[in-house]
Amino acid sequence: TTNSNKFVDPLEDPLPGVGTYEDFNTIDWVREKTKDRDRHREITNKSKLSTVALLHSISDAFSGWLLMLLVGLMSGALAGGIDIAAHWLTDMKEGVCLIGFWFNHEHCCWTSNETTFKERDQCPQWQSWAELITGTSEGPFAYIMNYLMYIFWALLFAFLAVTLVRAFAPYACGSGIPEIKTILSGFIIRGYLGKWTLIIKTITLVLAVSSGLSLGKEGPLVHVACCCANILCHLFTKYRKNEAKRREVLSAAAAVGVSVAFGAPIGGVLFSLEEVSYYFPLKTLWRSFFAALVAAFTLRSINPFGNSRLVLFYVEFHAPWHMLELAPFILLGIFGGLWGALFIRANIAWCRRRKTTRLGHYPVMEVLVVTALTAVVAYPNSYTRMSGAELISELFNDCSLLDSSQLCGYKPVSVLADRPAGEGLYTALWQLALALVFKIMVTVITFGMKVPSGLFIPSMAVGAIAGRLLGVGMEQLAYYHHDWFLFKGWCSPGADCITPGLYAMVGAAACLGGVTRMTVSLVVIMFELTGGLEYIVPLMAATMTSKWVADAFGREGIYEAHIRLNGYPFLEPKEEFEHSSLTVDVMRPRRSDPALAVLTQEGMTVEEVEALVESTRYSGFPVVVSQESQRLVGFVFRRDLLISIDNARKRQEGVVGASQVVFTEHAPAHAADAPPPLRLRGILDLSPFTVTDHTPMDITVDIFRKLGLRQCLVTHNGRLLGIITKKDILKHMAQIANRDPDSILFN
Amino acid sequence: TTNSNKFVDPLEDPLPGVGTYEDFNTIDWVREKTKDRDRHREITNKSKLSTVALLHSISDAFSGWLLMLLVGLMSGALAGGIDIAAHWLTDMKEGVCLIGFWFNHEHCCWTSNETTFKERDQCPQWQSWAELITGTSEGPFAYIMNYLMYIFWALLFAFLAVTLVRAFAPYACGSGIPEIKTILSGFIIRGYLGKWTLIIKTITLVLAVSSGLSLGKEGPLVHVACCCANILCHLFTKYRKNEAKRREVLSAAAAVGVSVAFGAPIGGVLFSLEEVSYYFPLKTLWRSFFAALVAAFTLRSINPFGNSRLVLFYVEFHAPWHMLELAPFILLGIFGGLWGALFIRANIAWCRRRKTTRLGHYPVMEVLVVTALTAVVAYPNSYTRMSGAELISELFNDCSLLDSSQLCGYKPVSVLADRPAGEGLYTALWQLALALVFKIMVTVITFGMKVPSGLFIPSMAVGAIAGRLLGVGMEQLAYYHHDWFLFKGWCSPGADCITPGLYAMVGAAACLGGVTRMTVSLVVIMFELTGGLEYIVPLMAATMTSKWVADAFGREGIYEAHIRLNGYPFLEPKEEFEHSSLTVDVMRPRRSDPALAVLTQEGMTVEEVEALVESTRYSGFPVVVSQESQRLVGFVFRRDLLISIDNARKRQEGVVGASQVVFTEHAPAHAADAPPPLRLRGILDLSPFTVTDHTPMDITVDIFRKLGLRQCLVTHNGRLLGIITKKDILKHMAQIANRDPDSILFN
Repeated sequence: TTNSNKFVDPLEDPLPGVGTYEDFNTIDWVREKTKDRDRHREITNKSKLSTVALLHSISDAFSGWLLMLLVGLMSGALAGGIDIAAHWLTDMKEGVCLIGFWFNHEHCCWTSNETTFKERDQCPQWQSWAELITGTSEGPFAYIMNYLMYIFWALLFAFLAVTLVRAFAPYACGSGIPEIKTILSGFIIRGYLGKWTLIIKTITLVLAVSSGLSLGKEGPLVHVACCCANILCHLFTKYRKNEAKRREVLSAAAAVGVSVAFGAPIGGVLFSLEEVSYYFPLKTLWRSFFAALVAAFTLRSINPFGNSRLVLFYVEFHAPWHMLELAPFILLGIFGGLWGALFIRANIAWCRRRKTTRLGHYPVMEVLVVTALTAVVAYPNSYTRMSGAELISELFNDCSLLDSSQLCGYKPVSVLADRPAGEGLYTALWQLALALVFKIMVTVITFGMKVPSGLFIPSMAVGAIAGRLLGVGMEQLAYYHHDWFLFKGWCSPGADCITPGLYAMVGAAACLGGVTRMTVSLVVIMFELTGGLEYIVPLMAATMTSKWVADAFGREGIYEAHIRLNGYPFLEPKEEFEHSSLTVDVMRPRRSDPALAVLTQEGMTVEEVEALVESTRYSGFPVVVSQESQRLVGFVFRRDLLISIDNARKRQEGVVGASQVVFTEHAPAHAADAPPPLRLRGILDLSPFTVTDHTPMDITVDIFRKLGLRQCLVTHNGRLLGIITKKDILKHMAQIANRDPDSILFN
Repeated sequence: TTNSNKFVDPLEDPLPGVGTYEDFNTIDWVREKTKDRDRHREITNKSKLSTVALLHSISDAFSGWLLMLLVGLMSGALAGGIDIAAHWLTDMKEGVCLIGFWFNHEHCCWTSNETTFKERDQCPQWQSWAELITGTSEGPFAYIMNYLMYIFWALLFAFLAVTLVRAFAPYACGSGIPEIKTILSGFIIRGYLGKWTLIIKTITLVLAVSSGLSLGKEGPLVHVACCCANILCHLFTKYRKNEAKRREVLSAAAAVGVSVAFGAPIGGVLFSLEEVSYYFPLKTLWRSFFAALVAAFTLRSINPFGNSRLVLFYVEFHAPWHMLELAPFILLGIFGGLWGALFIRANIAWCRRRKTTRLGHYPVMEVLVVTALTAVVAYPNSYTRMSGAELISELFNDCSLLDSSQLCGYKPVSVLADRPAGEGLYTALWQLALALVFKIMVTVITFGMKVPSGLFIPSMAVGAIAGRLLGVGMEQLAYYHHDWFLFKGWCSPGADCITPGLYAMVGAAACLGGVTRMTVSLVVIMFELTGGLEYIVPLMAATMTSKWVADAFGREGIYEAHIRLNGYPFLEPKEEFEHSSLTVDVMRPRRSDPALAVLTQEGMTVEEVEALVESTRYSGFPVVVSQESQRLVGFVFRRDLLISIDNARKRQEGVVGASQVVFTEHAPAHAADAPPPLRLRGILDLSPFTVTDHTPMDITVDIFRKLGLRQCLVTHNGRLLGIITKKDILKHMAQIANRDPDSILFN
C-alpha cells in the first residue's frame, strides 16, 4: 500500500480534470465556493511567512478591483465603438459623405461652412444616393432611387450579419440575456462568452442595428460586456479556475452592459441584481457599481453622441404633473401590460414554430425577408425610417417654441403653453399610429432571429408612441375643454399643463416593464434619464400597473419564457414554489423504479464500480456504509470517479480490475496476494447535502436556490432513500404547470 | 385511542403558543416561511370555491402593498412632525416669538413686514432671551444672559429626554440600528418596536436633537419607521402572525427611515439592502421602494424645511472637478477611514466602561453633564452652536457672490471665480478647526447615552468640516500658485476651479463611510443629494479609500461593534468564515461532554420525557428511532413539547405520567390496561436540517446564513452525532478571534 496516500488530498495533487465540469452541465456552487475559500486561506496563511507571499496576497485581494476596472474600460470602449459604427452605417443607408465616406451625416456637415443653423443637417458635402447617382434629390425618381438604395443597404447589412453569425459564432445571435441568466445560475455553455462570440457579436450588432430591423442594442451589449469579463477573467487565476468567482464578475458585467446602454450605472447595477443575477453577494454590488461607473465614464469620454451626455435619451421637462394625470398614466400601464403579455405569447409561439417547422431551416432567408419587409414598409414613414433610439428621443422631447419637428407642429400661439394642434401635428399623429401598428407586428417576428437583437428599444418605442399619442390627445382635450371640472384649476388657458413627452416616457417604461417584468431597475433607469425625483411617481404607477396586468396573463417575463423555450435548467429564484408536494414525490428512484445505484465504502472492486458506472447515466453516486444499512457516507461525481480510475489503471502500480475500491479513511487489511486497493477518499465529498423524505418541496426548492445545489440526497430515518437533482425539480415543476416535463434538455 | 388524531395536524388545530417564540430567542426562518406558504396555499385553494374567498385572496395579495402605503404615510408624517418640532425647540434655546411662542424663528419673521431681504431672520417679533429679559440684545450682559438661557434650555431638553426614556421606554435610547439589524436577522426582542417605544422615541428624539447634543436623527428615524411598521403589521393577520413576513415589512421600513431622513428613496432602499437587512427577497425590494417613495412625498407635502425640497441638504455645484483633485479626495478618504476606525475603538471602549463601571449607574447625570459640557463649549463658536444639519448644509454650500456667510468672506473680486480669502474666511477657518476637534471628542462620548442618538449627522459634520478646510486650502493654493505645473491649464486666474463645498461633501461621505462601512448606499444617498452623476466619481474614490483604510484597523462597522458589545446573536452575512475548522469541532456535545439528550420515537413515558426536558436547558431535542441506532427521525422544540404535554395532561383523558409518548405515524399496540399513549407527531419537525460531521464550517455557516437556521443536526455515516446552533457558531467565531466566547448572551 505504498500509494495509499496518493489521492487523499485532491487539493495538494489534483488530477487534471477532477473538479471540472462538462459542457451543458450545472456547476456545484458549494464545491466552487469551498475551493475558493481553501485557496484564499492558503494565500492568507502563506502571506505571514514571506514578503513575496504577502505581496501576492495583496495583489490577489485587489485583482478583483483591477479586473472590474478592465471590464469597465473595455466594455465602455466597445460600446462607444458600436455606437459610432452603427451611427455611420445607419446614415450610409441614406447617402454618403463626399469628403470621406467614413464620416456620418452629422459629422460630415460639421466640417462644412455652408451649414445654416436652421438646417444643420443639410450641407452639399452630404449627398443622398439619388443625388449622387441621378444628380437630383427632387422628384419621384429620386425618391424611388433612395428607396431602393435604402432597401439594398438594409439587405446587405442584414445578410452580412446573419452570415457572419452562422459562419463564425452561432452563439452571437439573439439578445443573450436568457442564456446569461442561465449561465449565472450555474449552467455551463462553453464558448457562449468566448472571444469569437465577442468579435462576431460586436460586428454583427452594428450591422443588425444599421439594417433598420426593429431591434435594439441593449441586450446584446450585456452579452458583449459579459464576453469581455469572461475573457479578462483568464488573466487572473482566481477567476479563471473558479466557476463561482467568475460568475460574480459576470454579474457585474451585466450591470456594465446596461450602464453603457443607457448611461445609467445605478440602474444597471439594480438590473443585474433584480433581473439577471442569481448569486449576488454584497461585495459584488459594490464592485458592479464601480465597473458600471468606469464603463459609463469611458463611454462618455469617447462621446459617441457628440453631446457629452452620459445618457442615451436626455430629457428635461419643465412642467410638473398633476395628480389627475395618474389616470392616463395607469391607462398606459394597462396598455404596457397588455402589450407585454401579448408580445410574449406571440413571440414564443412564433419562435416555437421556427424551432419545429421548416422555417427554422432557412435562417438567412428569414432574416432577408423580414429585413426587406421592414425596409419596404418603414421607408415611407419618417418615424419608422429613423432608428429606434432616435424615434424614442424625439418622442420624449418636450416641444419648445423653436422646435421645427413635425411633432411640434402646433398652431403658433404667443405663450409657451398648451397650444392647439396644427396641420403638421395631425400628420405626425397619423404616421405615429401607423408606426405603432407596424412596430408591434414586426417586433414579434424579429426578436429571436439569427442576428443579435435586443428588445429594450423596440418595446420602449412601442410604449413611447402610444404614450405620445395619448399625451397629445390629453393636451388637446385640456386645451379645448379647459373649463371641464377635471381640468379646472390646473389647466387654465395659457398654462403648460400637459407634457406629451412625459407621457411618452411613462408609456415606454410601461411597455418595457410589461415585456421584461423589471420593476425597481426600470424605474431607476428612467429616473437616471431625467435626473428628477419628480417623475418617479408616474413611472412607478405605470410600471406597477403594467406588471400586475401582464402577470395576470402569465407570470413569466420574456427572458424566462425564452429560457423555458430553449429547455435550459434554470430554477427561477423569484417565484415561490406553491404546490404542496413532498420531496419523496419528486426524488428518484420512484416507487416503481429499480433501487438507487449506490457504491459501498468498501468491498467493491474496480470492475464492479466500472460496471455500475457504465450501466447508468447518473452524474454522481452516493457512497454508503453497506448495502444493508444504507447509511450515507458521501457522494462521488461520475466524472471524478472515471478520471481517477482511469488514471490509477494507467499510472498506479498493481491496480487491476480486481483491486478493491476503498472510500474509508483507513485501508482494510488485505491478503498479501490480493492486488493493492485503490483508495478514492480524496475524491469523495464527505459533506453531501441531505434532506428527509418528508421535507416539503418548497423547502427543498429553497435550499437548491439559496445554496446553488446540483443534487441533494434524500434520507428516511437516517437511511439513504434517493436522490433529487435540479432537473428533477424542474421536471416536477413543468408537470405541475401541465407542461411537457421533457422540455428540460440539459443537466 | 380515541384521541389519537388530535395532534396530527398542528395547522388544523394548533394549540395556543405552539409555534411561537420566547423573548430573546431566535426564530426559525424555515418554519415561519413554511407556515406562510401553507397559509397562502390554503387561501389560494379556497379562492376557487367562492367569490368571498376569491375576494379574500385578492385582498390578501394586496395587503402587503396597503401596509407599505400606510407605513410610508405614517413614517413620512412622523418625520415631518419631528422636523418641525425640533426646529421650533432648537430656536427656543435662543429666543421666543412674541406673536406666538409656537412659531419658530423663521416662521415668526415670515409674518413680519419689517424684514428686509438682507437680514431675513431679524425682525422685532422675534426676541432673544436677553432682549426679552433685560431689554437689550447688545453688550456682554446680554451675551451672558443668552448663554445661560441656552445652557438652561439644553439641560431641560436633555433632562426631559433621558427621564422619559428611563421612565417609559428604555428601548427608545440609542440609534436602534444595531438592534434592528439583530431583529431582522431573526432575533426576538419584545417591545423593542412597540407603541411605547414609538411614542417615547419620537418625543425624546425631538428633545435630544434640540438640546444641541452632538447627535443626529437618522438612525432613530429608522427605528421610528420600524416601530410604525411593526404596529401597522397588527392590522393584517398575514403579518401579525408570521415573524418572517413581518421582517420583510421591517426591512422596507428601514428603507423608509433613511428615505425620510435624507429625502433619498433609492439610497434608502440600498441602505436597507446593504446595511440592515438579512433576508431581503426581490419582492421586498420593489415594495421598499414604493414605501420609501410614499414616505418621501408625504414628508415633502408637509414641507418641514419650507423649501419644498425633498432632500435635507440640497446642493448645486457649478464647476466640474479635475482629475488631479482625486488626490485630495483620496486624502479625505484616508482621513475618513482613520476617523472611522478611531471613533469605533474609542466609542466602544467608552461604552464598555459605561457597562462595567459605576458610570452606567447614573445615566441621567451622564446625559446632563455631557449636555452641559456640549452647551458650554458649543455656544461661543457659531459653527458648533448651530445644529449639525445646518452646519453641514452651510459647509456643502457653494459660495455665490451675494452670499453673506462668514465662510464666503472672500476679498471682493469682480468675477465669479476663485478668490483670495479675506478676514471673515480666516476667522471662519479657525472656528471650524476648533469645531472639528470639539465634534470629534464629544461625539465619542455622546453616542450610546440613554437618549435617542443617531450617528450620521455628527460623522458627516466631522467630515464636512475637514473637507471644507482642505477645500479652502486647495482653493487658496490654486489661487496664489496658479502657475504651478499642477494647476496649469485648469486653474488659470479668473477660473472657478476649486469648489470647497464639493470637498465638504466628499469629506462627509468619507467619514460616514469610515464609521458605518456603507458603500453603494452611501454613494447613492450622496448622489441623490446633488442629483448629478458628475460627482459620483469623487464620492466613490473617497468612500472606497475610507472603507479600505478603516477595514485595515478592524473589519467591523460601528453597528456590528455595538451588536457584539451587547452580545446579540447576530451572524454577520457579509463576512466570510475564514477558518478551516470542521463542523465536528464546533458542535455539541464536545468529546468530553455527556452524550446528546435525545428522545426516542416510541418507548418513553411522559414522565421520562419531562425529566429529560427539565434536566437540560436546550431549546429543542432530536427524536431518534432508538437509542442504539441513533437514526434521526425529527426534531421537536422544547416550548412546543412542554405546552403540548401540559395541555394533554390537563385536557386529554387518560394521559398520565406513565403514558407513552409516541412520535410515530401509527400508534403501537398497547395493553388494554395501560394508559392511552400521547401522540406528538404533530409537533415533530420531520425535516430537520442535517450536515455531516466532516462538513467544513464555512459551508455550515453559509447554510445557517442563507437559510436562516436556528439549529442544525450533525450526523456521521447516517447516525446522529450532535447538534450545532447559531450560538455555538458565534461562540466558535469569538474564540477564533480571541474574544470572550461567553460574550454572546442570548439564544
